[in-house]
Amino acid sequence: MTDPLPPGSTIGILGGGQLGRMLALAAAPLGLKVVIFDPDEKAPAAQVSAGHVAAAYDDADALAAFAARVDVVTYEFENIPTAALDLLESKLPIRPGRQALAISQDRLSEKTWLQDQGARVAPFADIASEADLAAALEHIGAPAILKTRRFGYDGKGQVRLKGPEDVPSAWEALKGSPAVLEGFVDFDCEISVIGARGLDGSVACFDPGRNLHEDGILRRTTVPAGVPASLTTDAVLLAGRILNALDYVGVLGIEFFVTGDGLVVNEFAPRVHNSGHWTQNGCLIDQFEQHIRAVAGWPLGDGRRFADVEMQNLIGHDADNWQALGATGGLHLYGKAEARPGRKMGHVNRITGLNTGG
Amino acid sequence: MTDPLPPGSTIGILGGGQLGRMLALAAAPLGLKVVIFDPDEKAPAAQVSAGHVAAAYDDADALAAFAARVDVVTYEFENIPTAALDLLESKLPIRPGRQALAISQDRLSEKTWLQDQGARVAPFADIASEADLAAALEHIGAPAILKTRRFGYDGKGQVRLKGPEDVPSAWEALKGSPAVLEGFVDFDCEISVIGARGLDGSVACFDPGRNLHEDGILRRTTVPAGVPASLTTDAVLLAGRILNALDYVGVLGIEFFVTGDGLVVNEFAPRVHNSGHWTQNGCLIDQFEQHIRAVAGWPLGDGRRFADVEMQNLIGHDADNWQALGATGGLHLYGKAEARPGRKMGHVNRITGLNTGG
Repeated sequence: MTDPLPPGSTIGILGGGQLGRMLALAAAPLGLKVVIFDPDEKAPAAQVSAGHVAAAYDDADALAAFAARVDVVTYEFENIPTAALDLLESKLPIRPGRQALAISQDRLSEKTWLQDQGARVAPFADIASEADLAAALEHIGAPAILKTRRFGYDGKGQVRLKGPEDVPSAWEALKGSPAVLEGFVDFDCEISVIGARGLDGSVACFDPGRNLHEDGILRRTTVPAGVPASLTTDAVLLAGRILNALDYVGVLGIEFFVTGDGLVVNEFAPRVHNSGHWTQNGCLIDQFEQHIRAVAGWPLGDGRRFADVEMQNLIGHDADNWQALGATGGLHLYGKAEARPGRKMGHVNRITGLNTGG
Repeated sequence: MTDPLPPGSTIGILGGGQLGRMLALAAAPLGLKVVIFDPDEKAPAAQVSAGHVAAAYDDADALAAFAARVDVVTYEFENIPTAALDLLESKLPIRPGRQALAISQDRLSEKTWLQDQGARVAPFADIASEADLAAALEHIGAPAILKTRRFGYDGKGQVRLKGPEDVPSAWEALKGSPAVLEGFVDFDCEISVIGARGLDGSVACFDPGRNLHEDGILRRTTVPAGVPASLTTDAVLLAGRILNALDYVGVLGIEFFVTGDGLVVNEFAPRVHNSGHWTQNGCLIDQFEQHIRAVAGWPLGDGRRFADVEMQNLIGHDADNWQALGATGGLHLYGKAEARPGRKMGHVNRITGLNTGG
């Protein structure tokens, strides 16, 4: 299937959180319908979608029914069970493809693969035992950070080690999960590039943003990123190389550490990315529409930036302040009923300048 | 009810066509849900809304059930049966209010009211009989146009008269409907202003657009309109006067003829307006979000224009060309299955320039 999906077609999205919701909102103006697959009856994306299959990811009947209602499948998160993907892929295309998912689901394969592409990554080691950990820490040096190979996000599944004395407790904390030890990178700032690749192989990247994390969660992204043009070029070229190497279709987010010695890749995510939310209020076409266009086999759109933007995540009770936030414009709330600590409830894109950008 | 509706509240929209659909898409980022009331099971807005009551506008039980699910009611068209409005208004607020609807539903009351506000309108006369028509044509002069007082749109319910010889056939064509005869206005172009007024009385207007009609249907709107600044000021001031006089809450579209002798008001519509669709790709906040903000009692947003835009309606089979149209960006399709001649299927907003506008 390489023809573009005509208007009236249906895109199936695995996961009905805020990313699925914003993808659904971006699909509508292209005349494309969305059906969400998410076990949560109150999935935020379901409020703005034509259909919702509320079932577990291992429910083969529900997956088959979902597949019968849609023309292509995409996803808003990486940790989709392999069996679900196998079942869906036997019936219709999954975009982005399985290779990007397989690599990014596992920190060890991700780092190894990135190195193979010529990207610099933090020093790392495969950890399968406490002895591995002790040896790797000696080799990489302290401080270092132990991360589960799979299922980590927003700082979860991570333990810092200040020195050899932390080895037993760190190994204990991960409860025997396969892990990687990463050395710390001495960086000036973190930037990310949101890149898109179409079914025809064309690539388009948004301007890089500068990211500020707090407690392992993205807090702000600022555009322009305020880094030298040569670094922007390096970042965009590497994004293009990764997209091509994966024969990727869709939007991908890549995080870089900016060091005195150039760029170090932190990680990539084969999906629309929190650090690309600023594009909704700063670009002619945003990351969500670019992703839908790619997944539907449409040509990528014109993602030119017309504004300087500061994106701020609204976490937990931040969003209780919606009245003041609403006065500023660029507000995006996710339709989640309950504000739990650490839960992403929305974001606000503040326009800090308008420009013709060139 | 004058407090702003908190996120999680529900806006009820009467009518589930493209305007309701784009209102629903604008409500979501504010964390507001939408329930559509529309007899059509395939109403385009239902594909992107949390709920859809598919029932006739005279179905009192369905209207009551709808009212029980929503916190405020708005609408995408003017010709809502009075009984439906009475029933809904007994239970919850309708925004914009009944006065604007009552005036704009009837061409005679609209023209009379506009004159009372100090606006210039085309010469007109109340027509209740063939004798009225003959007398009015003599007074106003030919050519002139006979329009039903109610239920006309997109050139429907209108007959042109070239001279007295057309009186019998014109009167016949309207089948006895109450009507107005309007004299022709010798105009250079038509412009429109999309104005918004909040529950707090604040007013914000988008830059005027220049409209080109074909066969009674809007074909293009171009921004900037290319009229002198003094006319823009006149148009915006009159829009503000109309909004205040109606104690209006929401977005209103006003069409003006630009003549050698200043502005003549053609008509106004108490809703988001086709000639304001360009705001989706040219302004920080578009007419749909402004309307939702007003209806929900939120402060109006920052509608600054950052681009020059040409909006082109896609009528009937125009939208069959979606592949080429999709390559240009700014595409908005309405999710309608069947492309009938004269049916609005979508529009495209072409960016013709980026600017900081000031």
